[in-house]
Amino acid sequence: MSGRPLDVLEANLGDGVAVRLKDGATYTGELGGYDQHLNVVLEPAGGDSEPSAGEDEATETVESTTIIRGDNVVSITP
Amino acid sequence: MSGRPLDVLEANLGDGVAVRLKDGATYTGELGGYDQHLNVVLEPAGGDSEPSAGEDEATETVESTTIIRGDNVVSITP
Amino acid sequence: MSGRPLDVLEANLGDGVAVRLKDGATYTGELGGYDQHLNVVLEPAGGDSEPSAGEDEATETVESTTIIRGDNVVSITP
Amino acid sequence: MSGRPLDVLEANLGDGVAVRLKDGATYTGELGGYDQHLNVVLEPAGGDSEPSAGEDEATETVESTTIIRGDNVVSITP
Amino acid sequence: MSGRPLDVLEANLGDGVAVRLKDGATYTGELGGYDQHLNVVLEPAGGDSEPSAGEDEATETVESTTIIRGDNVVSITP
Amino acid sequence: MSGRPLDVLEANLGDGVAVRLKDGATYTGELGGYDQHLNVVLEPAGGDSEPSAGEDEATETVESTTIIRGDNVVSITP
Amino acid sequence: MSGRPLDVLEANLGDGVAVRLKDGATYTGELGGYDQHLNVVLEPAGGDSEPSAGEDEATETVESTTIIRGDNVVSITP
Repeated sequence: MSGRPLDVLEANLGDGVAVRLKDGATYTGELGGYDQHLNVVLEPAGGDSEPSAGEDEATETVESTTIIRGDNVVSITP
Repeated sequence: MSGRPLDVLEANLGDGVAVRLKDGATYTGELGGYDQHLNVVLEPAGGDSEPSAGEDEATETVESTTIIRGDNVVSITP
Repeated sequence: MSGRPLDVLEANLGDGVAVRLKDGATYTGELGGYDQHLNVVLEPAGGDSEPSAGEDEATETVESTTIIRGDNVVSITP
Repeated sequence: MSGRPLDVLEANLGDGVAVRLKDGATYTGELGGYDQHLNVVLEPAGGDSEPSAGEDEATETVESTTIIRGDNVVSITP
Repeated sequence: MSGRPLDVLEANLGDGVAVRLKDGATYTGELGGYDQHLNVVLEPAGGDSEPSAGEDEATETVESTTIIRGDNVVSITP
Repeated sequence: MSGRPLDVLEANLGDGVAVRLKDGATYTGELGGYDQHLNVVLEPAGGDSEPSAGEDEATETVESTTIIRGDNVVSITP
Repeated sequence: MSGRPLDVLEANLGDGVAVRLKDGATYTGELGGYDQHLNVVLEPAGGDSEPSAGEDEATETVESTTIIRGDNVVSITP
């Protein structure tokens, strides 16, 4: 067992994650922060982290720090 | 009687579950965690658990730890 | 008078209910549990309970324990 | 002046009401209960109560106790 | 300045108002009550109050006491 | 820096504002009041205030006091 | 790691940001303020700040102070 949702986010701070949104887009980047609403902060990857989710045409790697409001999120894959 | 919704989730930690989303997709995996919003953590199945829900073309077995935000969830079937 | 919504659910624990969802589907089963958000747990009927709502093509009798998130629910008919 | 919304519901417990939903349907029945979210319980009318709202093709008189989740409700007419 | 939204409603209790809903309909009537969610109670006008909003084909004057759930409301015009 | 959203509203009480709604409409008027949900009260302009937002065909200047429920609001421009 | 979402906003007060909305529009301006709902205040840029997000045809630089209600926001890019 991996723990509660926020525990999983805490354990993945600084690691690459893929955030899938309700509009179909997926953002990938380094998990810079989060809060209890699942608002997340993504940062450009440092180069050595690789999100495990498959990248397809609707996936965008963030080029600068990006705050995503939690109510848009479908799933977060560390 | 099986108990309240969160009790049922607690009793199924580590077991295979199928999570049906509002967009029609179903994710299956091992229930790694959850919280009071029905945010859930799915993990790749260890091999010996089998969700009971029928698998069809819109069902995806998670390949890595996946946090699903609760407001997307229609149903969870242990 | 039948009482407040949660009182009606409490009185019907273990009995057959039909849960109609916003997506048009109706799930029937034994009411295994509920909480204040109207999240409900349905279980396969034991054989002697029969929901009173009419069954049509969009009605599905649950084959295993199913947690339904309350915000999908339109109505619950004991 | 008739009072606050919950006061009006309280004053109409046991009386016939029409509940119009966001999906266009209208349910009529006897008001069996309610709570602060405007979740309501409708019961088959005892025979002597008559909701004042006009009945049209999308109006359904409940045939058994029905809990309606408040977030589907547009209006309630005693 | 007219005051906070609930103050404006309080000042208009018993007066004619027009309530515009998200589905495009507008209900007019006498403001019988309200609460902090902007749930409102409309009553048939006593005859001497006249809502100031223009009446068009989608406007309906309530013929009996009507509770409108606040989350349907776009605007209220005393 | 202009301050938090509610501070900006407070500072503009009595001044002309344009309120853009999710349905595409824009209402202009004098800001008569507001609350923490961004419910706002617009009043007919006194004549000397002029909202800065461009007026186009979907813009309506309120002709009487209008309460707008906050969950319809996209933006408010003093 | 960059910190929690509100910390990132706090650190960017007075700097240029791009706010992407659910309706597809993107507003750019100087971050004048924010609150815990991710309601934000944008102000016309002073001239020396430049949001990092790409500007395309759906991007609008605010010409006057603009309050954006948080529930419309998809992402904020400092």
